[in-house]
Amino acid sequence: MRKDMEQTAMQAHGQRPRIVIVGAGFGGLTAARGLAGRGADILLIDRENHHLFQPLLYQVATAALAESDIATPVRAVLRRARDVTVLMGEVTAVDPARRVVMVRDTGDFPYDHLILATGAAYSWFGHDDWTRYATVLKTLDDAAAIRLRLLSAFERAESRSDAGEIRRLLTFVVVGGGPTGVELAGSIAELARSTLARDFRHIEPRQARIVLCEAGPRLLAAFPARLSAYTVRALGGLGVEVRLGATVDEIDAGGVDVAGERIESANVFWCAGTAARPAAAWIDADAARNGAVKVAPDCSVPGHDGVFALGDVASLAGSDGKPLPGLAAVAEQQGKYVARVIANRIAGRPPPGPFRYRDLGTLAIIGRSRAVAWLGRMQLTGFPAWLFWSLVHLFLLAGFRNRLVVYVNWSWAWFTYGRGARLITGVRDDEDEHDAAR
Amino acid sequence: MRKDMEQTAMQAHGQRPRIVIVGAGFGGLTAARGLAGRGADILLIDRENHHLFQPLLYQVATAALAESDIATPVRAVLRRARDVTVLMGEVTAVDPARRVVMVRDTGDFPYDHLILATGAAYSWFGHDDWTRYATVLKTLDDAAAIRLRLLSAFERAESRSDAGEIRRLLTFVVVGGGPTGVELAGSIAELARSTLARDFRHIEPRQARIVLCEAGPRLLAAFPARLSAYTVRALGGLGVEVRLGATVDEIDAGGVDVAGERIESANVFWCAGTAARPAAAWIDADAARNGAVKVAPDCSVPGHDGVFALGDVASLAGSDGKPLPGLAAVAEQQGKYVARVIANRIAGRPPPGPFRYRDLGTLAIIGRSRAVAWLGRMQLTGFPAWLFWSLVHLFLLAGFRNRLVVYVNWSWAWFTYGRGARLITGVRDDEDEHDAAR
Repeated sequence: MRKDMEQTAMQAHGQRPRIVIVGAGFGGLTAARGLAGRGADILLIDRENHHLFQPLLYQVATAALAESDIATPVRAVLRRARDVTVLMGEVTAVDPARRVVMVRDTGDFPYDHLILATGAAYSWFGHDDWTRYATVLKTLDDAAAIRLRLLSAFERAESRSDAGEIRRLLTFVVVGGGPTGVELAGSIAELARSTLARDFRHIEPRQARIVLCEAGPRLLAAFPARLSAYTVRALGGLGVEVRLGATVDEIDAGGVDVAGERIESANVFWCAGTAARPAAAWIDADAARNGAVKVAPDCSVPGHDGVFALGDVASLAGSDGKPLPGLAAVAEQQGKYVARVIANRIAGRPPPGPFRYRDLGTLAIIGRSRAVAWLGRMQLTGFPAWLFWSLVHLFLLAGFRNRLVVYVNWSWAWFTYGRGARLITGVRDDEDEHDAAR
Repeated sequence: MRKDMEQTAMQAHGQRPRIVIVGAGFGGLTAARGLAGRGADILLIDRENHHLFQPLLYQVATAALAESDIATPVRAVLRRARDVTVLMGEVTAVDPARRVVMVRDTGDFPYDHLILATGAAYSWFGHDDWTRYATVLKTLDDAAAIRLRLLSAFERAESRSDAGEIRRLLTFVVVGGGPTGVELAGSIAELARSTLARDFRHIEPRQARIVLCEAGPRLLAAFPARLSAYTVRALGGLGVEVRLGATVDEIDAGGVDVAGERIESANVFWCAGTAARPAAAWIDADAARNGAVKVAPDCSVPGHDGVFALGDVASLAGSDGKPLPGLAAVAEQQGKYVARVIANRIAGRPPPGPFRYRDLGTLAIIGRSRAVAWLGRMQLTGFPAWLFWSLVHLFLLAGFRNRLVVYVNWSWAWFTYGRGARLITGVRDDEDEHDAAR
């Protein structure tokens, strides 16, 4: 298309159209990349300065990888996209009437097109007080907090003499049997049984108790039943106790009440439920039960011209009528798609057809040589699934440098069971107080 | 020596002699390794769970390396030394009469031989209130705090409109012209002028102002004058303003007063002075001006049978009559030496001669291709010094794995000026308050 046609198609105010993207996750970042160089001014806002490769976050939490192995500064990713401005800030509200996004302590930013890509958080099912005792796994800081708790638990146990307290310190409860819960439980088991096995003189890390609680009838509910069953067996082989149909009734400083049983534990990790971040409320849009914005088949928000939602914060049915899963692949494909919708609008081209999710398969890792892969009609378990998982994740990791370092770390960990990132840092005062209060 | 002779030589209480080492830095760790397998029970106590390769700490502070690249869990290092027990804990006192070391919240640990290897911290010259505004660089947490402040300063500047505030955010003041101050200032300059140069749209990172203040008449006072002069020139080439004979009079939330001039700055880093950690007070020993324990030529503490001090917490004159420098090499050689002294005692062998420091040279790095090396009569500057520095540090880095990952990171950084660890994590509430209070 010729330059002058492009100009004609532009917004009435005669400037370059302004696109604001909220969230630099897989969806938002892909959208920004897709829109760069299309004649618009793009503002990408995120609370963090980095894009996070969330599928490997559990490895940071269990000290196998360092933070910088799985995260890249958003600015670095978009360095060459001169029409994209990155802003580290927190969006507090959107005014759809004035078409502005409000950022805390910074100002209001007008938009012609708005992409909501804020993702999801864990749902506490109304028990917000449990956040005091259980740690979630969603951000790099969360992963660092879990790593601190895990490693400190072994250190503390080593220096204590009370048998009950040692047992409590060496009991790890993971709530939620989705992929993150499975990965975290399996990885903690490997940490205790392999990496730390010979590092202590008084305690026996191998005797650490790891309990994975799932309220539903099976693990990895989104996978075929055969893979769920394999996952229970594989976790059992690693020494993880799996509790199915086990609802958590209470979490306090001493432990958890689950399915009528009291488990004394100093380490409770929460990977259950999912709730979209509050983007729907910003624009007063129709929301699904988990808070996600109900979007039209082109990912636009009905009743809000120029506003789109994608990824975990959007609710859209797939070709099978079921809501699309909360996967990076969905967010990425939607990001690419929405970029095309907006680019076509700017250029005055007709819109593309409705969004179609191309299912490339779903993977979950359980431990060393243990994984499940669901690739349409093909279902893999064990070493082949693990190998497939490893290759896919290495390939997907953003940036060549990260890929290389992760490869080194992994190869080394594979041969030695050693973990390079096993450092206790960032001990905060409230951490000690929490402990002292017991 | 035969086993039964070893038994005879043991302490009167008929048990294996008990050795307590406080501090797992270069000196303490080397001593523990040297004493392993000598028929004693060794307890190594440190406040952290990791041994830190401190010479590269400035690279973590400036986002070139990740924490785990330069630190190894102490337990992992000593995994095979079954007679060494590692305890993560804080020593609060020593009772030389009862011969016990007291560890906070844990208990008292008796010793037959005690090695004090607690190192040194920065000295605030009586201005302890400055700790609120200036950040030191001594631990991994310090490095993470500096990295957070550095990267956040650029992010905040990008979102502000007030020119004075932007200038204040982009002014970095490093106090102290020793190796750490030089390395930090040079590294901040490279971060601003190369790595971040093209990442922002509103601010110009290249215009960041970096000031290095030294109260004395020259930088790197321990080096020959020619190398000091080169360092000033090299830093100037990187865009660092060097102020010699510049005493800091005041540090507050807004900036610093230095040599009569007010510099508005949101980022003040403190690398000046040095004070031994309080080990001398524990045993009421004779201390040098900086608080270090004055030791005999065999590193033993006069008047305290079986107590030794080494590294930065010990004060001992070298063959030239001047106090030995605070270098990792001194601590390591003393750790090895004290291990031999104690092992000989246990075995009933005569003691070795007095400790002699073998000077292997002193190095400091200024930036990419810029360093100084003082190797006896040979003095190197520029690329040769930098190459030498790189090879030596790669070789010294504890553990093969670290070496490999650091190599990958460095090679990559060398070719791209990119920094992998540029992540803003661990934003604490007090950080925001500190900022909001301005």
